[in-house]
Amino acid sequence: MTTAKAYAALSPKAPLEPFSFERRAPNDDDVVIDILYSGVCHSDIHQVRDEWFPGIYPMVPGHEIVGKVRQVGAKVSRFKEGDTVGVGCFVDSCMKCQQRDVDREQYMMDQLAQTYNSLDRDGLPTYGGYSDHIVVKEGYVLSVPGNLDLAGAAPLLCAGITLYSPLRHWNAGPGKKVAIVGLGGLGHMGVKLAHAMGAEVTVLSQSLSKKDDALRLGADHYYATNDPETFTKLAGSFDLVINTVSAQIDWNAYLNLLTIDGTMVLVGVPENPVPVHAFSLIMGRRSLAGSCIGSIKETQEMLDFCGEHNIVSDIELIDIKEINTAYERVIKSDVRYRFVINMASIK
Amino acid sequence: MTTAKAYAALSPKAPLEPFSFERRAPNDDDVVIDILYSGVCHSDIHQVRDEWFPGIYPMVPGHEIVGKVRQVGAKVSRFKEGDTVGVGCFVDSCMKCQQRDVDREQYMMDQLAQTYNSLDRDGLPTYGGYSDHIVVKEGYVLSVPGNLDLAGAAPLLCAGITLYSPLRHWNAGPGKKVAIVGLGGLGHMGVKLAHAMGAEVTVLSQSLSKKDDALRLGADHYYATNDPETFTKLAGSFDLVINTVSAQIDWNAYLNLLTIDGTMVLVGVPENPVPVHAFSLIMGRRSLAGSCIGSIKETQEMLDFCGEHNIVSDIELIDIKEINTAYERVIKSDVRYRFVINMASIK
Repeated sequence: MTTAKAYAALSPKAPLEPFSFERRAPNDDDVVIDILYSGVCHSDIHQVRDEWFPGIYPMVPGHEIVGKVRQVGAKVSRFKEGDTVGVGCFVDSCMKCQQRDVDREQYMMDQLAQTYNSLDRDGLPTYGGYSDHIVVKEGYVLSVPGNLDLAGAAPLLCAGITLYSPLRHWNAGPGKKVAIVGLGGLGHMGVKLAHAMGAEVTVLSQSLSKKDDALRLGADHYYATNDPETFTKLAGSFDLVINTVSAQIDWNAYLNLLTIDGTMVLVGVPENPVPVHAFSLIMGRRSLAGSCIGSIKETQEMLDFCGEHNIVSDIELIDIKEINTAYERVIKSDVRYRFVINMASIK
Repeated sequence: MTTAKAYAALSPKAPLEPFSFERRAPNDDDVVIDILYSGVCHSDIHQVRDEWFPGIYPMVPGHEIVGKVRQVGAKVSRFKEGDTVGVGCFVDSCMKCQQRDVDREQYMMDQLAQTYNSLDRDGLPTYGGYSDHIVVKEGYVLSVPGNLDLAGAAPLLCAGITLYSPLRHWNAGPGKKVAIVGLGGLGHMGVKLAHAMGAEVTVLSQSLSKKDDALRLGADHYYATNDPETFTKLAGSFDLVINTVSAQIDWNAYLNLLTIDGTMVLVGVPENPVPVHAFSLIMGRRSLAGSCIGSIKETQEMLDFCGEHNIVSDIELIDIKEINTAYERVIKSDVRYRFVINMASIK
């Protein structure tokens, strides 16, 4: 066992504070990783504050992890000391399950051990990336392409794959018109990825304030949703709408922007159910769907794609001591576009 | 011009009463049809009562029409006097439209002339099937297979295609588990069609009262939705759920019955929007979609399929004089499973 330095919430809704705990001694198939950078995801805040489901405390959040391999178990073949690696939202799963489906494992939530706020296969709580090191089974460790900025790469492990997976699944690419609703941590990754896939990308954001950013990130068009004309002008326009907004907005208005057979995919989670009118779907054989991160296999594919296209997140690098202030700014959408903790600051 | 005997609502919410009007003289590309049978669709009631959008009065409803060809225009090649034919929900469309898409024309509603409560391409109101004859452009006339019971075939023109189209689009067939929610005019067609396509069919209906019927119609399984255990037992079971219910039910409970990547398709239209929780879709990459009738091409395909499998609707044949009582019974779901008007009763 090794002692990890971390930041944790000791109880629901408590601010994060310094915390120490023991990581397991590595098994034969484990990789020990010194964490360099850890992204700050809005879902960290929801979980720390006990807003989604009863949390496990003390809670060390963080599932956008980039680091260097410190040590590998005897049976580890794909990694060696010094490799640059990443860890995302889950760190183990029920390998025994006969229906194990490597392409869709992220949807078998009850069979997964999530990176934090979850129980590992050994029944002990998992602790996430707001810590100086982590021990992860080889099969859940990802290779990070060497050309990428490592701090900017951390958010790829959740924000990146959360957008990459639906863009691929619903065939974003040349000839497809894709709208990204909301230009935050998720949305700005959507713009970069959809643009790199060759789609025609439109950003729909509340006001015109982020227009220059959006065009710089790769958007072809930008419309403000506080202008009602946007919804008249763009009716029936998009093959795919990726809705990253977790606020309560009128989904029917956005469904109406889809072409026949178009799909709107939710990747943000509003706290309450949103009213949907059947006619919004029936008139045009439209679909409202949801998508959740991606499999380990697809996450590696995404990282390789980002390596080829030199895509990372636009970030603000912070010290771990600034984490509680950063949370308040995330809630106000006051970050362009993702906070990443420089984990050297925990030493 | 020829005088048609019909039943019409003279004003919004008025009961239907005898009504005469002039049908146009057939153009070169028109078919004149003596109507034998006309099905009673729940949407007739919504439109007569002005519940969906401002109606055109007097309104002669009816878009599930089976009859015999009385006369054809000089340029009509596919039909001759005496042929058994059908007419469904629309009778013309904007042929000039460059984007005309024969497989999805039903979704270009503003370019379609609907069979009633609509304007024809000449700008005059259309009058539907609760009448003794109709004049329809050849391209919108369908062949009804000779082996089918003609009264039972009438509901295929709307109820039949409304279920056939989503079952085909979402690949119902061998190895697929399909649930039909609601066993009414639409649902009972869904059971027959999905069974004939080779899917494993489950009926989800409020109580056990229609179980024997469902199994006779071709269902493999039947569950009552007033038993909460149904939703626990069947969680994650179905590749495709077709929801025919227009009452306000909890869609989230039904979405939870889908497998990963499963789809629930709405073909019934609740009056008010229904709350949908993002997690119901995100956890399992599930889709909520809608489907609306089918194209003329697909409707002919459906009729041919029904001919091969000898599928018609289970009906109660009524005289036109009974129509107002029949409407009340439709509203109470007191019909097994579709009223069809014997149009000989109008003479």
